[in-house]
Amino acid sequence: MQGRYKALWLNENDFLEVIDQTKLPFEYETKVLKTTQEIVEAIKNMTVRGAGVIGSVAAFGIYTACMEVKNYSELKEKASLIRESRPTAVNLMWAVDKMMELLKNSDNLILDAKKYAIKLNDEEALESQNIAKYGADIIEDILKKKNKTKINILTHCNAGWLAVIDEGTALAPIYEAKRRGIDVHVWVDETRPRNQGSSLTAWELTQSKIDHTIIADNTGGHLMQIGEVDMVITGADRVSANGDVANKIGTYLKALAAYDNDVPFYVAIPASTFDFYIKDGMKDIPIELRSEDEVKYMSGLDENGEIKKILITPKNSPAINYGFDVTPARLITALVTNKGICEANFEKIKRKFGKKIK
Amino acid sequence: MQGRYKALWLNENDFLEVIDQTKLPFEYETKVLKTTQEIVEAIKNMTVRGAGVIGSVAAFGIYTACMEVKNYSELKEKASLIRESRPTAVNLMWAVDKMMELLKNSDNLILDAKKYAIKLNDEEALESQNIAKYGADIIEDILKKKNKTKINILTHCNAGWLAVIDEGTALAPIYEAKRRGIDVHVWVDETRPRNQGSSLTAWELTQSKIDHTIIADNTGGHLMQIGEVDMVITGADRVSANGDVANKIGTYLKALAAYDNDVPFYVAIPASTFDFYIKDGMKDIPIELRSEDEVKYMSGLDENGEIKKILITPKNSPAINYGFDVTPARLITALVTNKGICEANFEKIKRKFGKKIK
Repeated sequence: MQGRYKALWLNENDFLEVIDQTKLPFEYETKVLKTTQEIVEAIKNMTVRGAGVIGSVAAFGIYTACMEVKNYSELKEKASLIRESRPTAVNLMWAVDKMMELLKNSDNLILDAKKYAIKLNDEEALESQNIAKYGADIIEDILKKKNKTKINILTHCNAGWLAVIDEGTALAPIYEAKRRGIDVHVWVDETRPRNQGSSLTAWELTQSKIDHTIIADNTGGHLMQIGEVDMVITGADRVSANGDVANKIGTYLKALAAYDNDVPFYVAIPASTFDFYIKDGMKDIPIELRSEDEVKYMSGLDENGEIKKILITPKNSPAINYGFDVTPARLITALVTNKGICEANFEKIKRKFGKKIK
Repeated sequence: MQGRYKALWLNENDFLEVIDQTKLPFEYETKVLKTTQEIVEAIKNMTVRGAGVIGSVAAFGIYTACMEVKNYSELKEKASLIRESRPTAVNLMWAVDKMMELLKNSDNLILDAKKYAIKLNDEEALESQNIAKYGADIIEDILKKKNKTKINILTHCNAGWLAVIDEGTALAPIYEAKRRGIDVHVWVDETRPRNQGSSLTAWELTQSKIDHTIIADNTGGHLMQIGEVDMVITGADRVSANGDVANKIGTYLKALAAYDNDVPFYVAIPASTFDFYIKDGMKDIPIELRSEDEVKYMSGLDENGEIKKILITPKNSPAINYGFDVTPARLITALVTNKGICEANFEKIKRKFGKKIK
C-alpha cells in the first residue's frame, strides 16, 4: 500500500490491520484480521464501520480470502459472505464486485488481489481529497455570502477518516477548510444508538484540534431555528440514481429542519456510494435492522476509567433499531462528489456519472 | 388531599412526598420534601419533572414555605425562589402566582395554602381526565377513518402521570383508549439527553401493560415514512397565545416529520400550560440551558444491578444542552385541551380560553 492509511492498513506481515472503532474514544486499539470469517465479523459488529471503510475492508477482505482458497470458484463463496455482511452501504457490494471482476482471469489471486485492493483504496483516497476541495469551496462561498468569518457546520454520525479513506467525506471539507485557515466550528450530533458522533467524530475532531460541540440528536432543529447552523453536511451509505440518500438513521430529520430553516444541506460522497440500479431510493434501498441491545445498553467509562456497559431502559421493554433512513432528494441542496458539486436529481447525476447508469 | 395522587402526595405528617424520578426505571424511591430549599432543589435536579408536576410541586412548595415564614411578605421571597427554579414550563409560574393570589388576604397561611394546593391539584386531575376523553375520541376517529383495529402512536419525552397529575397529558388518552378496549401500541422516543422516554414513559407503560417499543430519537422519521405511525401526541411546557409549543428538545423534529408524512400531530395540555402573555412563542418563550454533563454522562444498571454513571464522550469535548425547542403552530394538527380539541391559532385559542388572554 502506498503510505499508511489512518483507519486500516496492511501490516508488516501483509495482513489487514484496522482500528477497533468499538473502543473509541476511550481506547485506541488495533485488530489484525487474518481470515474471511474475521473480516465478516468485524464488519457485522462494527469494529470497522462507515460506508467507505466497509468497502475498503471488503476489498482487503477479498485479498484475505484469496489466502484461503485454491481457485476463483472457491473465492466466489467467500466473496458472497463478505458481500452480505451488512445490507445498506452499497460501497461494500461495489468493492466486492469490483475486486471479483478484476480477479476473474487472474492466475495469481493473492498477488493480484493485494495489488487491486491497494489500487482501489488509493483511488478512494484521491476521491476523498477531491471532495475535500469542492466542499471547502462551498464553505468559503457561504462565509462570503453571509459576510462572516466563522462557520458553524452540523454533521450527523461519522463520515471522517474513520469512515472513508483517506480523510472521509463529510469531514474532509472541514479538514481542508481548517488547512485554508477558516475558523470552523462543528455541531456534532451524538447519533444514537451507536453514538458514532459523540464517540468517533468528536474524537477525530479532537485529534485535529477542530473546535466542536457535542449535541443530542434532538438539538439540531433548535440550533437551526436560532440561526446557529450555517450548513449541514453528512456522508451517505447509498445514493440512488434519483438522488435519494440513505444515511445513518436521523439524517432525514436534520434534512427536514435544514429545509424548514433555509440552511443548506449537503451530502458528500465518492462515486462508489451511488447505486445506479436503484431509481427510487425511498422505495428500494434496503434498511438494516440491528439488535435492540444497541438501544438498550450503553458503553462508557466508569469512575475508575474502565469501559462499562450499562442497561439504560426497563429490562423488559422492547426496542427497535433501524440503522438508516432515506432522505428524499428534494431536501438536499446538492451532493458534494469527487467530480464536483452535483444536484441531487436523475438528470444531473446522469450527466456527471452517466456512463454507469443503466 | 382527596385520595393519593401517583407522582406526589401529602404524607401522614402532612409533608410533600414525591417519587424520585431520577431513580426510575431502576429503583422506585420516594423523597419527603420538608423545606423550600428542598422543593427548589428537587425541581432543579429533576427529582420531579414534567410541566404539570412541577406546577403541582410548586403549589405544595408554597404550602411548605408557609411553615417557614411569619407573614405574607416573607412568603413572597420564598415564592420567588420556587418560581425561578426552572425557566421554561409555565405551569410553575402559574401555580406559584395562583397560590400567592389566593393567599393574599389569608390569616392562616399554612391551613389555607394546604387547602388551595389540594384544590389546584384536584382541578388539574380533572383536566387530565378531560384530556384523556377528548384524546381517546381522536384515537377512535383515526382508527375508524383508516379502518384499522390497532393504532401506533409516537410520543416524545414523558407526559404521563409522572409528569402531570393525575394521568398525564399525552399519555392520558392512551390510558383511556386502553380502558375503551382499543389495541394501542406506543413508539417511545428515548428522549436524549435525560431519557425521559426510555426511562419514564417506558416504565409507566410497563406498569399499565401497554404495548410499546423504545426507539432512538433518530428513528421516528423513518417510521413515519414507512407508514408505521398513525398519530403523534406530546405534552408541552408552554404554549403561547398563537399556538406555538415549547416542549422537550426534539419535539420540533418530530413535528416536521409528521407534517412531511401527513401524520396528525397533537399536543395535549391543560389550561395552565398556556402563556397568554406571549403572542409569539418562536421568539419569546425562554429556553432552558442545562448542564453539559447530562449529555456527556449516562446512568444505568451495571451487570451487578447497581446504578452506575458512565462517561460516553471524549472527556474534553464540550457539549451543549438545550432543554426545549419550540414547534411552530403551523405544524400542529390541534391542541387536545381540558376544554376539548382546539386548533393551534390565536383566534381559536382566544375563543375557547378567551377571558384569560390580555
